[in-house]
Amino acid sequence: MDSESDESKVSLKRRVREIIFEAETPTGKLFDVILLWCIGLSVAVVMLETVRGLDAQYSGVLLTLEWCFTGIFTLEYLLRLWCSKQPLKYALSFYGVVDLLSCLPAYVVLFFGASSAFGVVRALRLLRMFRILKMVNHVQGAEVILHGLARSRAKITVFFFAILLLSTIAGTLMYYLEGGQPGTDFTSIPKSIYYAIVSITTVGYGDVVAQTDLGRFITTLMILTGYAVIAVPTGIVTSEMMRLQEPDRTTDACPSCGVHGHLPDAKFCRRCGSSMDDEH
Amino acid sequence: MDSESDESKVSLKRRVREIIFEAETPTGKLFDVILLWCIGLSVAVVMLETVRGLDAQYSGVLLTLEWCFTGIFTLEYLLRLWCSKQPLKYALSFYGVVDLLSCLPAYVVLFFGASSAFGVVRALRLLRMFRILKMVNHVQGAEVILHGLARSRAKITVFFFAILLLSTIAGTLMYYLEGGQPGTDFTSIPKSIYYAIVSITTVGYGDVVAQTDLGRFITTLMILTGYAVIAVPTGIVTSEMMRLQEPDRTTDACPSCGVHGHLPDAKFCRRCGSSMDDEH
Amino acid sequence: MDSESDESKVSLKRRVREIIFEAETPTGKLFDVILLWCIGLSVAVVMLETVRGLDAQYSGVLLTLEWCFTGIFTLEYLLRLWCSKQPLKYALSFYGVVDLLSCLPAYVVLFFGASSAFGVVRALRLLRMFRILKMVNHVQGAEVILHGLARSRAKITVFFFAILLLSTIAGTLMYYLEGGQPGTDFTSIPKSIYYAIVSITTVGYGDVVAQTDLGRFITTLMILTGYAVIAVPTGIVTSEMMRLQEPDRTTDACPSCGVHGHLPDAKFCRRCGSSMDDEH
Amino acid sequence: MDSESDESKVSLKRRVREIIFEAETPTGKLFDVILLWCIGLSVAVVMLETVRGLDAQYSGVLLTLEWCFTGIFTLEYLLRLWCSKQPLKYALSFYGVVDLLSCLPAYVVLFFGASSAFGVVRALRLLRMFRILKMVNHVQGAEVILHGLARSRAKITVFFFAILLLSTIAGTLMYYLEGGQPGTDFTSIPKSIYYAIVSITTVGYGDVVAQTDLGRFITTLMILTGYAVIAVPTGIVTSEMMRLQEPDRTTDACPSCGVHGHLPDAKFCRRCGSSMDDEH
Repeated sequence: MDSESDESKVSLKRRVREIIFEAETPTGKLFDVILLWCIGLSVAVVMLETVRGLDAQYSGVLLTLEWCFTGIFTLEYLLRLWCSKQPLKYALSFYGVVDLLSCLPAYVVLFFGASSAFGVVRALRLLRMFRILKMVNHVQGAEVILHGLARSRAKITVFFFAILLLSTIAGTLMYYLEGGQPGTDFTSIPKSIYYAIVSITTVGYGDVVAQTDLGRFITTLMILTGYAVIAVPTGIVTSEMMRLQEPDRTTDACPSCGVHGHLPDAKFCRRCGSSMDDEH
Repeated sequence: MDSESDESKVSLKRRVREIIFEAETPTGKLFDVILLWCIGLSVAVVMLETVRGLDAQYSGVLLTLEWCFTGIFTLEYLLRLWCSKQPLKYALSFYGVVDLLSCLPAYVVLFFGASSAFGVVRALRLLRMFRILKMVNHVQGAEVILHGLARSRAKITVFFFAILLLSTIAGTLMYYLEGGQPGTDFTSIPKSIYYAIVSITTVGYGDVVAQTDLGRFITTLMILTGYAVIAVPTGIVTSEMMRLQEPDRTTDACPSCGVHGHLPDAKFCRRCGSSMDDEH
Repeated sequence: MDSESDESKVSLKRRVREIIFEAETPTGKLFDVILLWCIGLSVAVVMLETVRGLDAQYSGVLLTLEWCFTGIFTLEYLLRLWCSKQPLKYALSFYGVVDLLSCLPAYVVLFFGASSAFGVVRALRLLRMFRILKMVNHVQGAEVILHGLARSRAKITVFFFAILLLSTIAGTLMYYLEGGQPGTDFTSIPKSIYYAIVSITTVGYGDVVAQTDLGRFITTLMILTGYAVIAVPTGIVTSEMMRLQEPDRTTDACPSCGVHGHLPDAKFCRRCGSSMDDEH
Repeated sequence: MDSESDESKVSLKRRVREIIFEAETPTGKLFDVILLWCIGLSVAVVMLETVRGLDAQYSGVLLTLEWCFTGIFTLEYLLRLWCSKQPLKYALSFYGVVDLLSCLPAYVVLFFGASSAFGVVRALRLLRMFRILKMVNHVQGAEVILHGLARSRAKITVFFFAILLLSTIAGTLMYYLEGGQPGTDFTSIPKSIYYAIVSITTVGYGDVVAQTDLGRFITTLMILTGYAVIAVPTGIVTSEMMRLQEPDRTTDACPSCGVHGHLPDAKFCRRCGSSMDDEH
């Protein structure tokens, strides 16, 4: 009856929630895999729409695929809202917003027409690329590394400040030295600072280069000095990676002689030979 | 008689196998060195065939050398098939296929004529470059490092995903900002993502560059953010290198139970509790 | 009376000194924040003055802002001189000079006119960019990392020498090989050494590139050899980062002699031999 | 008399040898400093001779300076030969050859005339740049790091082989994909391998770039794959740097309880409190 249909409705909700939000059951894992493929393919479709050659030939196919994906993501979003324990909390969370933006653009274009302000339509279309953020949830190990990086955020902030400082000083100096040359690339301080950052990080596009020997000399000093600075984030990240490595020794103490620093598989203390078990 | 010639035949097979597949005997080592030189020289010949200037002058010499090497590698391949304990298993293994592809192209060109579909002939000719993979077997220490990298493959996968994510977001943003500029390099999202990956990995060709100040500013943020991400594989590899270094554990074996890998200051075996001294 | 007004004057000086030179009190912290914002904004104004498009439109606004900031920094400088315990020592210190140079240029331009030697005026204007150095004082953690880098300065000097040596040899070789080519980029040894440094540090602008196959081959060797050399500063910085990480030593102090920095498993002080337990 | 003049001659030789070959005495140190300056300045003169603008104006000055330095280095070389204990061994050693090549070119040009084969004269002139190698002897700490790198040469060889392998495979693939395009940069396999090495090491000149989308995609894979490989030398060098770091704990054992792993400044054992001195 009513209570029975309510029960089966609740139980349906619960089963759908298990599938969508958790990845324990085989159905849940399958759902995850299918969803990942849909996200990947829909992002590929948006990318291909921008390639001149392909767009002309396959625009019909791409448009159909786009509407399929919009439909899939709309259904997924509505299901999540329906079976979630706290729908409002989900809708306002980061992933809730991403999921909403995954389906919205197509409807906006539909309602307001493709001939509306090109910039707005283009922006909306490109927002669909952000579906790729939905994948983050599904990659194992990502959070461990993110936490490791988060722990180092103080040092990383100092790094950013140092790069900014060095780039501003060096960029201003290069602007002063090279700015007066005919046909110079150093047309403003912001562009010179861009040059400095591009050089110190060793990217080195080459769209902005020094013309004078003195400018090249200062550039050399800037690169070599900056090299010690940009080695810092590598050092920070490396020591975090090493911290994550399995600690080779445990913190247990031998119940008889108290020595610690035993290997994980030790059954007997290496110092006194007693058993490591407490009930000795 | 028959049994004697069978014996000498078997013993011949065994000797050839020792020479080709193992590197213990002086003849085996010599075989390896000669083979390495042949591989190196034949790869050089394929390379030189593509240099415009040289090809015209020396095409006769290069062709002759090419047939010499094809002959050598064919002989080697047939010898390996003949003296191998499991010829079929060898023929289907990775190195078996590489060895076959080392000799095949020349025969294909011979039978089907050089005027057949240029793409196919060119591809076959270029496959001979893959002979260089035969060298991998002969470099010591390669496997240790390969195992080290294989152990970290989970973290390296996360790294690849992070780069892909950051590049897609940044590339799409740059496409939106720069795509409308006259004479822009950002002609499609794939090309913009290529720009992002080339920038974050600090390669920075310069074939695609930003024209607007805002584009250059976003590029700067992209590079600095990406710097922490690309520091990750360096950190992973460094901690693997260090793991290979620290001989924290001795090579002594416990006289009672035979377990090794004890800490330097161990007096008692951690597994069975016996004294580590031999005269117990 | 006099003593009272002297007292209140001294107490006013002390309060102002607390606000400006120390960041303990809420007012002190607020002062710091306001000052940081003023520095940041004034540096942005100098940057924007150099961007062609903006300068024409907003020159009036930018000039007004510039005088505001000059006024603020002049007031700050005078206050620091007034309330400092040793005004002369402050005025001659690094930050004293930076603070003076932050306000001086505008007055020089005012007194001597903007039509004086363009180079001099431009240089003075650009000196205002150095206000960004005032920020260094306010970033926490910077000194720890600076000390770490200072400890490694011997090794970093060797690194610089090695880069210089390798670049000079390689640059000279490239100059010899490529200098004779028509339309060559290698027009002088200094420019060739610049090429070598830009290549070894993997910046790779592309403004100077090899034209001959032999030149490209030498470039390849130069890059691969240099790669081991430029890995050194990264290694130095990483090991310094790791040193800062491992709290191998506790912060406990020996109750008898007060020494700290003991190992975690220490029961007795390594300096005086007393027990580490408090109740001895 | 004779024996006295022989003695004073021997003692003069010994004193000169002390000054030149050793750096203990104040005169020895002064000699080293003066020599370092002469080397640096003479290298600068050779560099400046190649800069078009300067050469015309200052050729007289530069030529005079060049002869001064040639004279100084000739005198130094003759002195070394005279006072060395084993002149022939010195003359055939690496530094002996470098010292000879430092003075020889000027005399060759003098005897054979500047109008002899331009290539030869240019080469000889450029050999003078190699004087900079004389500096290596004088930089402290260089040998420690060189030894560290030498210890890792097996792993570094594997690294070079891996880079070569990856570049050959990737370069050949890019040649196949891009070689047929109009106006392609991929004109030969050697040039394509150069492209691969320049990309994997993240130098990225941009003189050779992919034109097709598929080419750019393969380039992306090549860069990301290569990133793990080029992280290896950084990891090797970093772990060598860390090995060089002062070991925080000594290998001494406490004479009473036998525990080791004490800090360098420990006077008492942290475990049992006894004195660390043997004569207890």
